[in-house]
Formats: sequence, structure tokens, C-alpha cells
Amino acid sequence: MKKNEQGSTSKLKVIPLGGLEQIGMNITAFEYEDSIVVVDCGLAFPADDMLGIDLVIPDISYLKDNIDKVKGLMITHGHEDHIGAIPYVLKEISVPIYATKLTMGIIENKLKEHNLTNAVKRKVVKFGQSIILGKFRIEFIKTNHSIVDAAALAIYSPAGTVVHTGDFKVDYTPVFGDAIDLQRFAEIGKKGVLALMCDSTNAERPGFTQSERTIGRTFDTLFEEHKNTRIIIATFASNVDRVQQIINSAYKFDRKVVVEGRSMVNIIETATALGYLDIPDKTLIDIEQIRNYPDEKTVIITTGSQGESMAALSRMAGSMHRKISIGPGDTVIFSSNPIPGNEKAVTNIINELMKKGADVIFQDVHVSGHACQEEIKLIYTLVQPKYAIPVHGEYKHLIAQAKIARELGIEKENIFILSSGDVLEIDHESAAVTSKVQTGTILVDGLGVGDVGNVVLRDRQHLAEDGIMIVVLGLDKYSGQLVSGPDVVSRGFVYVRESDALMEEAKEIIDVGVEGCLDRGITDWGKIKSTIKESLSEFVWKKTKRRPMILPIIMEVE
Amino acid sequence: MKKNEQGSTSKLKVIPLGGLEQIGMNITAFEYEDSIVVVDCGLAFPADDMLGIDLVIPDISYLKDNIDKVKGLMITHGHEDHIGAIPYVLKEISVPIYATKLTMGIIENKLKEHNLTNAVKRKVVKFGQSIILGKFRIEFIKTNHSIVDAAALAIYSPAGTVVHTGDFKVDYTPVFGDAIDLQRFAEIGKKGVLALMCDSTNAERPGFTQSERTIGRTFDTLFEEHKNTRIIIATFASNVDRVQQIINSAYKFDRKVVVEGRSMVNIIETATALGYLDIPDKTLIDIEQIRNYPDEKTVIITTGSQGESMAALSRMAGSMHRKISIGPGDTVIFSSNPIPGNEKAVTNIINELMKKGADVIFQDVHVSGHACQEEIKLIYTLVQPKYAIPVHGEYKHLIAQAKIARELGIEKENIFILSSGDVLEIDHESAAVTSKVQTGTILVDGLGVGDVGNVVLRDRQHLAEDGIMIVVLGLDKYSGQLVSGPDVVSRGFVYVRESDALMEEAKEIIDVGVEGCLDRGITDWGKIKSTIKESLSEFVWKKTKRRPMILPIIMEVE
Repeated sequence: MKKNEQGSTSKLKVIPLGGLEQIGMNITAFEYEDSIVVVDCGLAFPADDMLGIDLVIPDISYLKDNIDKVKGLMITHGHEDHIGAIPYVLKEISVPIYATKLTMGIIENKLKEHNLTNAVKRKVVKFGQSIILGKFRIEFIKTNHSIVDAAALAIYSPAGTVVHTGDFKVDYTPVFGDAIDLQRFAEIGKKGVLALMCDSTNAERPGFTQSERTIGRTFDTLFEEHKNTRIIIATFASNVDRVQQIINSAYKFDRKVVVEGRSMVNIIETATALGYLDIPDKTLIDIEQIRNYPDEKTVIITTGSQGESMAALSRMAGSMHRKISIGPGDTVIFSSNPIPGNEKAVTNIINELMKKGADVIFQDVHVSGHACQEEIKLIYTLVQPKYAIPVHGEYKHLIAQAKIARELGIEKENIFILSSGDVLEIDHESAAVTSKVQTGTILVDGLGVGDVGNVVLRDRQHLAEDGIMIVVLGLDKYSGQLVSGPDVVSRGFVYVRESDALMEEAKEIIDVGVEGCLDRGITDWGKIKSTIKESLSEFVWKKTKRRPMILPIIMEVE
Repeated sequence: MKKNEQGSTSKLKVIPLGGLEQIGMNITAFEYEDSIVVVDCGLAFPADDMLGIDLVIPDISYLKDNIDKVKGLMITHGHEDHIGAIPYVLKEISVPIYATKLTMGIIENKLKEHNLTNAVKRKVVKFGQSIILGKFRIEFIKTNHSIVDAAALAIYSPAGTVVHTGDFKVDYTPVFGDAIDLQRFAEIGKKGVLALMCDSTNAERPGFTQSERTIGRTFDTLFEEHKNTRIIIATFASNVDRVQQIINSAYKFDRKVVVEGRSMVNIIETATALGYLDIPDKTLIDIEQIRNYPDEKTVIITTGSQGESMAALSRMAGSMHRKISIGPGDTVIFSSNPIPGNEKAVTNIINELMKKGADVIFQDVHVSGHACQEEIKLIYTLVQPKYAIPVHGEYKHLIAQAKIARELGIEKENIFILSSGDVLEIDHESAAVTSKVQTGTILVDGLGVGDVGNVVLRDRQHLAEDGIMIVVLGLDKYSGQLVSGPDVVSRGFVYVRESDALMEEAKEIIDVGVEGCLDRGITDWGKIKSTIKESLSEFVWKKTKRRPMILPIIMEVE
């Protein structure tokens, strides 16, 4: 076996611990000998069948089992699918965090909420700066994205260099700061890159994502066209550049700006404090002051652009907002596109707003934060990796990027569509998935982390579908005779007051079943319960074609 | 008051009984003096928060209350949102049905399933033919849509004529039969039309919907490009023209066709029997025969294009189909767009199919069945109505059509965005919503029609979110003393085996609460139950930030 640059024969292991089986939950371990660095630590939002679940975090058993090796957590940017699991993971393992300034500011807000501010070492990294951690050196490279301060990472190991784009687009004219550092990508590429892990989100879309700055011009036009109404703009809380552009247009058109929605207020405070937002004096006013200004002199920036039921915009649309009510004098602008799965919720809000008489604008006031096909080709061409590892996307997006990589001349066997837990071992000689480590999703429900699993979810689905029938009866401890019940109580099954006959019949069926058991001298509660279950479910199915959960409870009476 | 054509002063009442508060459930009553005719009788699919509900049908109390007036049910075409409630409505009121041939064929399949074939008078109507019912004459006019034999209706009353487009598009080169009868629209318009009720589904889309025939050319290209693989095409079961075009391409490329999915098999049988499909001999084969042909000589047409979990395509994608398994040798084509709300389900299936190695094509193999803006303008311009009543769409679609009507010169006060239940009274003199009749949605769950209402749904949502905790205890009938329990059973709350401590503590809290009541001599079960509820819910919230349903059950023991 050939020795590598540093005279060692070890390979670099790339181990995605999440992010490839669902949207979100991005977390990848890079391991070389005794060193592990982790890139991102995100959460996922629950799938439709995860009833009652608040959020989903990755199983980091592999990191816990190798805690001595883990040197640090590199965060590419401040979106929930990259930072959201940090508080939960920090409760399991203590690892220093490295991120750029705004990203770290957002992480710190999160740590504060979880009372973890003092629990962990944090280092703010500048673009161009490198961090040495064990056998790794990690360089932060400027990119553009729908949140400021996003970074790509060059991960240097003795086995070679991996470039991880993070979430990115190529914006030649960004609103804040510089364009993506294409020169640096080229320079690193020139020196030789082992693997490129590139954002696949928009890999199905041809062309080039438009500059964020184009939206500024759109706002100016819309403000010009709606000079006589109040303007309400919903967008993503974390899109600081978007907020900046709204403020710019507001200032230009002499309007005061109100910010509504807790997550947006938080981010704007953080971004302003750290110098990422430039708000002219007296432009921002408190929501309480809005009544002091005529409608046509105000703009409200709000959360809820995804139709989230508890967000400010939903509350306005549903007449449940305490301060703002929507009417014919309002222009509501969605500066966002629905994230897949939210289409219907967004449409419902649009309809509600229109019913209240508002003029609603919901198309062409948004640009994506992710690279389209031509940008992906640009990065590949600058970096010239030996191996392509498409990341950040559903399977179809990864496949779409793989196709692009093929078109650019990367050999099919050098393109890896990984699954979470795959251990990809690579060096300049070869690359292969050699093993699998434990990964998985941990469900967070309220304060409970991991106490809701498949059994509980299955029960919730069952309860959601057809409700529950509870059968209670009391048996004498000594004689085994029926001393109470059986009684039937149902919830979520039928409206009992109008289903007397059905419930009476059900009770008779149970009576017969229980008496039958007792008459035959059956004392095994399990048998009595299964008799109840079977006879009742058969009866209910025949009568209603429904299958409520049937729960027999036997009480022992002394 | 001026007398109308027939010398009467009555106005025509237009009363939508559904279809304006949600997608689907189209049903509208037209009333003139002692005559009512009803147009369409559709169902709606349940909204996301209608847990466990199978379908939704309209409340037809108004028709029941006026049954002596109701002369007939006119059906514009055979889609579920126009015919799906017929079996349920016929169980309430017996009314003759009028429809074109294929539409009636599909309705008859439905009646058979509900054993209603002999319950009702049916009359097949030809295009151009008129039906006289009481004071009304109704003419069926040829249109184009994503199902063959779709009709617009001209509803002639002594107060004037209403043109109802049904669901339509303008297809100059349809696959089967004639183009929309634009001449007749013009002729009727020339004579004077009171109101136009026009399909709004695509009113937000500029331009012209493409001809169904363009998809035939797309199929030819795709068959040419995928000569060496099996082809599986998912589309809407009822799109007979689409099926015809797939069969045409299959025949041209010498492939055998298998049809999979019950609803599709049914419609193809009906359409073939009635002469709407032309299938060359020996082209259709049974699914059992497919193994006798090489993959590249077969096409499978299947249901499930909307990601429906029980449909054939889902079962194939999930390796749960007994006859067909998907692999790298397959090309799967979605000849459909996701209906709003189904985006995520469709994407999930696409990902699953790709993971199995299939080549999946899911863009640009579909055209809509609804008129875009230019087609809507065409119909308005031919019909020249005095009043515009946009129908068939969410609120935002109706508003979009209202804007088009305004652009075409219809006065704002002559455009009516109605709500279900509104009674719009119109004649050539004036038009106004004068009153409101009872309408609503009735939920169908299994065999139950209307036995699931808000209380049951709220319970299901509660159960789905956090599950249930049941507290059972037995009190002596005479002494009121605790003779059994309290026991706690939970479902859908936490995984009990790993939450021993929590459940033990919960039990203690209940013990204390119950003992406290009994010690204080409280015998009112209501009070005991509310003590249990309050103390337990407070404890559970503090510990878990969850709010399971808490259900105390007290048993009387003799």
C-alpha cells in the first residue's frame, strides 16, 4: 500500500450520521486515525406520520462511543437543519463549537434557551482562517446563502482534502458582504481535492439562481405600486438580507417598520448587534406605536410565510392576532416559496387573507438560497474533485447531482450516493463504503427526548384514525366473579349521544363475552381481555367499518 | 317591477350548496318558482385535520326541505368532485339523474357498489339536447376536459339564461370526439345570457392550456428513448384519453399493456364498453401474463400518481405489490401533476422508486384539464354575460377570475363571489344575495355518515397529539370507599416500559388526590374526576410539556 503525503497509510472516513434519509438533520463525521471532526448538527422537522412530535434529532451513538476522538463541531451556517440539534447533542457530549460570527450568535441564542451557555467552548472563525484539530485542519471559506455568514469547509487530512460546500449559492452581488470566494475554491482545487460534498437541493433545476439583490428591486417596485396601503411582508426569520432589503425600501418610501414574530425579533436583534443589519435611526418602531402612523406609512415584517399555524401571519389571517387585523387596506406579500409539504397550509392562509379583503402577492418575490445546476457545475469545475459525494437533498436530488457530476466527467464508480451510517473510506488510491455505524432518528416531544418511539407513534396513528373504546370491569379478588361493569367508554370513535343504540349493542356483546368466560371458569385475565377485544372489534367493524383501539381494563376488587 | 319574457316577475335563484368553501363538493341548486334543478353532486376529500375521515359530502337539507320542487340532477362530468356524493344524496332524496353517456356509465358503476341501481331514474343526454324540467330547460353543450364527455350547461329560465361551464378547457385537437362547441356558446351568448358560472381552477395561470394530444407525442418520444426497459406509467384513473394515448404508443412500439389498480380497470372497462376507448386486439394482457413477455415489450398503466398510500404504484414502490417489483430495468413515468396537498406524498414515492434503481420521469408529461386565462376570456367573450359568478376554485382562484371578468369590462357590482348557502336572486334588472340557506359538510367515516362531528374530531386530534391516560378506580356502592385502584393505563403517551418512574409518580399523585377527596367525604364523582384530571395534567405538563387526554373512569362496586 502506498503511503500518503504524511507518510501514513490510513484512509479518511466520511460518515454521514444524518441528513441523507430525510430533509434536514445534517451531521457528518470525518475521521482520520484518532481524530474526528463533526460538520453541522441539525434537526429535522417531523414527517406527517410522526403525530405529536415536535422535532427530530440524530442518534449520535457513534460519537459517544468514540468521544475521545471527537475534536470539535464545525457549523456551516445558522439554519435549524444545521444547528437545531446542538443543544440536545451537547447534553450528551461536550465538544467545542466552531462557526462564523453570525452563525455563532444564533447558536448562542439557542444555548441560552437551554441554559447551556457555559457548558461549552466556542470559537468564532473568520473566513480564510483555519482550525487545527488533531490530524485535521479545517478552513472556512466564504459562500452565499439565504442566511449571511454561510461557510464552505475545506477539510484537510493526511489522506487528502475534502471540500464541503455547506448550503450555498453563487451570488455575485450579495446584499451584505462579499461574493462566494471562488478564487479560494479554485486554489484549493488546483492543489488537488479528494472529494467534493456539494449541496444538492436545487440540482434538478437548470440555470443559475438569481441574486438576492434582485428582490430588493422587486420590493421597490411593489412599494411604488402600493403607495396607499399598509404593506405586510412575510419571509423566513433568518433571512437577514431579505429583512435588510425590506428596511431599505421602507426607508426609501418613508415607511416605519414593525417586526412581528418572536423568532424574527430574536434574529434581527442578534444580526443588528453583530453588525449584519444596517437599520436607519427611527425606522424600526414598536408594534404598540403602529397606531400613531397612517397605514400607508408602515410596513410589518412577519413570520409565518410557511403557513405555520402558530406564527404571526396565521394569527393575523385567522383574526387571532391581538395587535394587527387584516382588511381591504392591506397588501400582504409572501417573500418566500412554500417548502415542500407546506403548500396547502400556505394556500389556506392566502385564501383567508384574501377573504378579509387584502391584496395578496405570493409569486416572484423570492429567490432560492441554493445553487442550481450551472452553479453546481461551476464549483465542480473549480474544485476538480476525484470523488463526488452529493449531499443535502432527498434521494432524487442526490441522483440529479450525480448526473451532473457524470456529465462533468467524473467516473460513475467515483460518485457515492451515501446513506446515513455508511462509512466511506477514501484516499487517493481508492474509495469504498466499508462498514456501517449506528444512526437513527430520535423523536423530541415536549421535554421528552427519545421516549416516543414506534409503539407510541403507532398507537397515536391508531387513535387518530378511529379513536378508542375502553372496556372496564371489576372482578372479585377471591371469587373471580364480576362485581362491577363491564362499562364502555369511547373517545374519538362516534358521537355517543347520537349513537345510543350502537353503544348499547356493544355493551351487550361484551356482557355476553365476559359472562361466557366466567361461566366457563376462565380466570386468566389475558383470555378475558382477548375475548372482549375480538368480539367487540368484530361487532364494531361489521356495524361501522371502523377499527377503534379496543382497550379492556380489568380491576381487581377486594 | 318589469315582467320578464314569460310574463312573470319572479327571479332566478342560484344557490351553491357546496364547492365554494373547499376544493370539491360541487353542487348548485337553480330555483325558479316551483322548480329546482341541481347541477352536480360531488364529494370532497377530507382536510388534513379531519383525522380518520374517508370523504366529505354536502348537507342537502335545503333540497330535502324543498323536495317537491326538485326536478332533477344534472351532472356535468364523471369526476368524484362532481358525482361522488350521488349515492349518499340518493339515500336521502330520490331524483332523476341526467348526464352524458360516459358520465352516466361511471355513475352507474358507483350506484352498483351502493346497491342503488334500481332506486333512481336515469337519462342519458346527448350534446345539443335539451331537457325540460318544470320551469327550466337545460341544454348540454360539448366541452373538453381531462375526462371525456364533459358538458357545459345552458340553464334557461323565464328570468333568463345561465351558462355553467362545468370543468372545461378549450382543446382544438382533442384525442376523442369533437372540440368544445364554441359556436353554440356564441349562439347562446348572442341571444343574451344573464350569468356565466365559469371554472376558476386555472384562473391564476396566464395563456392557454395545451391540447391533450401534445402528450401523445411526448409518449412517443419517451417510448423511443426507453426502448430497452419496461415502462410503467402512472396517471389519473379517469383520464380515458391519456390511457388511449398510452395504448396508441404501446401499439406503435409493439408493447403489451397491463392495467393495474382497481379504479383504473373499472373505468377502462366502462369506457371500452361504451366506445370511448379503441384498444387494438391483443394489446391488453392480464397481469398474470406479463412474465411471458420481455420487459422491453410491456407497459404497465397504473393508479397512484398522487402518492395515494394504498394505490398500486405505492405498493410497487414499497415492495408490497404481489405481482410487480421495481428495479433498475424500469422507467417510471408520472403522467400527472401533484394535486395541491399531495406534493410530499408524490415526492416520497419518486424517491422510493429511484432508490430501487428505476429511472423516474415526473415533469412535463401532463397537461391540465382546466382553462387558463386566455380560455376563460374566450368563453366570456363568446357568452357576454351580464353577471359573472366564478365557480370551482379556492377563494384565490375565484378572485383571479373576478379580475379577468373586470378586465373584460364586466362591472364590479355584477361580479359575485358567492359562499355556499348564499341565495343569489337574479334577473335582467338586478342581482343580489338576498338570504342564506343551510349548508355544511357531512363527514363519512366507514359506514358512518354524519356520526363523526366536531367533538369526535377534536378528540381524535387530541389523541393524535399526545395520546391518552386512563385512570380507573372502583368505589363501594354503599360506603363510597375505594375498593379498587386507582390504576393508570396509557396509550400513545410514552413508552411505558421505559417510563416506570414517571408512571409511578403519576400514580402517587392520583392516589393523593383521590384519598384527599374521600377523606374529605366527597362523594360527587364529578368532583373526584376533576380532581384527578387537574392534578394529573398539571404533573404531566410539568414533567413532559405534554397534554395527553386524561380520562378518569369510576366504577361502582356492589
